[in-house]
Amino acid sequence: SEVKKIAVLAGDGIGPEVVAEAEKVLKRTEELFGYKFETAHGLFGGIAIDEKGTPLPEETLELCKGADAVLLGAVGGPKWDNNPKELRPETGLLGIRKALGLFSNIRPATVFDCLKEASTLKPEVLEGTDLIVVRELTGGIYFGDKFRREGVQGQEAVDTCVYNVTEIDRIVRQAFDIARTRRRKLASVDKANVLETSRLWREVVNGIAPEYPDVEVEHVLVDNCAMQLLRRPSSFDVIVTENMFGDILSDEAAMLTGSIGMLSSASLGEGSFGLYEPVHGSAPDIAGQGISNPIATILSVALMFRLTFGYEDAAASIEEAVKNVLDAGHRTGDIAVDKNSAIGTTVMGDLIVAAM
Amino acid sequence: SEVKKIAVLAGDGIGPEVVAEAEKVLKRTEELFGYKFETAHGLFGGIAIDEKGTPLPEETLELCKGADAVLLGAVGGPKWDNNPKELRPETGLLGIRKALGLFSNIRPATVFDCLKEASTLKPEVLEGTDLIVVRELTGGIYFGDKFRREGVQGQEAVDTCVYNVTEIDRIVRQAFDIARTRRRKLASVDKANVLETSRLWREVVNGIAPEYPDVEVEHVLVDNCAMQLLRRPSSFDVIVTENMFGDILSDEAAMLTGSIGMLSSASLGEGSFGLYEPVHGSAPDIAGQGISNPIATILSVALMFRLTFGYEDAAASIEEAVKNVLDAGHRTGDIAVDKNSAIGTTVMGDLIVAAM
Ligand SMILES: CC(C)[C@H](C(=O)O)[C@@H](O)C(=O)O
Ligand SMILES: CC(C)[C@H](C(=O)O)[C@@H](O)C(=O)O
Repeated sequence: SEVKKIAVLAGDGIGPEVVAEAEKVLKRTEELFGYKFETAHGLFGGIAIDEKGTPLPEETLELCKGADAVLLGAVGGPKWDNNPKELRPETGLLGIRKALGLFSNIRPATVFDCLKEASTLKPEVLEGTDLIVVRELTGGIYFGDKFRREGVQGQEAVDTCVYNVTEIDRIVRQAFDIARTRRRKLASVDKANVLETSRLWREVVNGIAPEYPDVEVEHVLVDNCAMQLLRRPSSFDVIVTENMFGDILSDEAAMLTGSIGMLSSASLGEGSFGLYEPVHGSAPDIAGQGISNPIATILSVALMFRLTFGYEDAAASIEEAVKNVLDAGHRTGDIAVDKNSAIGTTVMGDLIVAAM
Repeated sequence: SEVKKIAVLAGDGIGPEVVAEAEKVLKRTEELFGYKFETAHGLFGGIAIDEKGTPLPEETLELCKGADAVLLGAVGGPKWDNNPKELRPETGLLGIRKALGLFSNIRPATVFDCLKEASTLKPEVLEGTDLIVVRELTGGIYFGDKFRREGVQGQEAVDTCVYNVTEIDRIVRQAFDIARTRRRKLASVDKANVLETSRLWREVVNGIAPEYPDVEVEHVLVDNCAMQLLRRPSSFDVIVTENMFGDILSDEAAMLTGSIGMLSSASLGEGSFGLYEPVHGSAPDIAGQGISNPIATILSVALMFRLTFGYEDAAASIEEAVKNVLDAGHRTGDIAVDKNSAIGTTVMGDLIVAAM
């Protein structure tokens, strides 16, 4: 079959170690399924700042544009936290999303049965929880004008939140489509009782809803959603929301599963191209010790296979392998109940490869 | 002693029933402690829209301005949800905050030991949780310019988030002062890696911190805070944040206590004047049935006594009474494990009055 080009941006902290395990999975997939991958590494994030003076070098962007998909590790760390804006890893993240037109971030918050005890929620509340947050990723207050000015009460700072109907329409339709492949329930989250952008958001959702009569739509205010995620997580199926609300709620949803070291995400645009990354961060505190959990990154590969390449067989094989390794009791430190029996990053990667 | 004037805005839904119980507590306080209160009712919210054509009638505002404190029930309901902005209860809420200069919303998220089982969090995670969210209430994206315009990609909506140093300074100082009366830990929440208003916020916090060397300051990104509230709620003492983040996080924090029907809040400005209200909403689904829980409103009176009047004896008496009634096993439906043994609103109010 056709060779698929994957741009690999390992990034900072534990990024390189977890990405290395995901690459083993790519290799094993070639052997098992006959697919062909060509990987090329690019500098991105803090390491790119150090080596190239910018978090998103032009050649990295070109590499991504020439690829079929991007695999990202994680970026950031204390070293760059006090840098000016242009020299911060996050700026690279925002830049790559915008430059590649990745307007949609999809984060499944799945509860792994064998890890339920790791959640701070009661098991009976978590029972049946299986939701996806669809977050708008290239609009809103993240990308609007931001500036300082002198006001009558001293210096002021301004951020601007802007949404147009086209931006809202495309992400909402995508969320409806995803809901159709699942339990056919869509929760659209906004703050329509206060914000104009939220009122427009709600209008667009209500305008599209009649085209999906089989999907049940509920409008939830963002503050209420933050509560309901705690009270009735299993009642949600697909949640769609704007950039900032999605940032907050997807992290809350991820944490309540107790499986944050296991969760992957996809950032998509028009067409099949996508950027795949673990939900967790670069964890500078444990970087280089070989103890990080590579599962979220490995599952990001499975997501890439499913959503960008349509390799459902290979995706399922990875997911099945992860499940079997966990069921056999293997745990990295972050998810181990008995920390003494925890295994390292490469051992976990090898076990999953062997189980595929 | 001097007569204290209290403006009572019962509002909509269960507002009037819970406020009625709080008024019994006011009366009992006069008998027990010799304090004198003069209450006057004003129309506010949905009922004011129905009767006066505006959620915040001029005479209600005058009533509040002439009072020493305001006791608010709850506003809103489906009847007014699709009204234009000027005719919505929430607009009254935003209006009264601004008109009375109530720039600070203080919400203790306390876990009531006898209600721990009502939380969806595991008891061992909740253990020791006792935090206060200090939310900026008259600035940010709630109050900035909002409008529609035609763009190249169709209609757009715009919201503007503005903060000046004066607004940030006063709320942050208040939070530091509150932290001093508690465990001396302050978490300032922002999104300084993306937003200009957050960068200014963080600068102001860092500028003030040296004046409070005894208070430990931590900066937490809003997405991370949404996670940490779930993972380590007991590690927080005082959380200070801007309007929108505070809206979301204070609701999340309230829900995790499992005691949302019990939580009260204070909205304060300069000086001792304050507006006190339960955290819960108007619950239109159960309004008029006499089954709502009046405790949050009754505890709002205790908070008023403590923060506005300095009547610590009366405040403690109310809190003690609530505790004793709960310890004796009395529950309204929302907090009852066995719903059949639940008592009604007035019975709960009477029990608390009797226990004072
Ligand atoms: C690092 C930051 C800019 C980023 C965001 O808020 O989008 C991160 O929190 C995420 O959710 O991917
Ligand atoms: C009703 C709404 C405008 C209000 C807010 O968001 O401030 C409410 O959610 C609150 O928190 O008091």
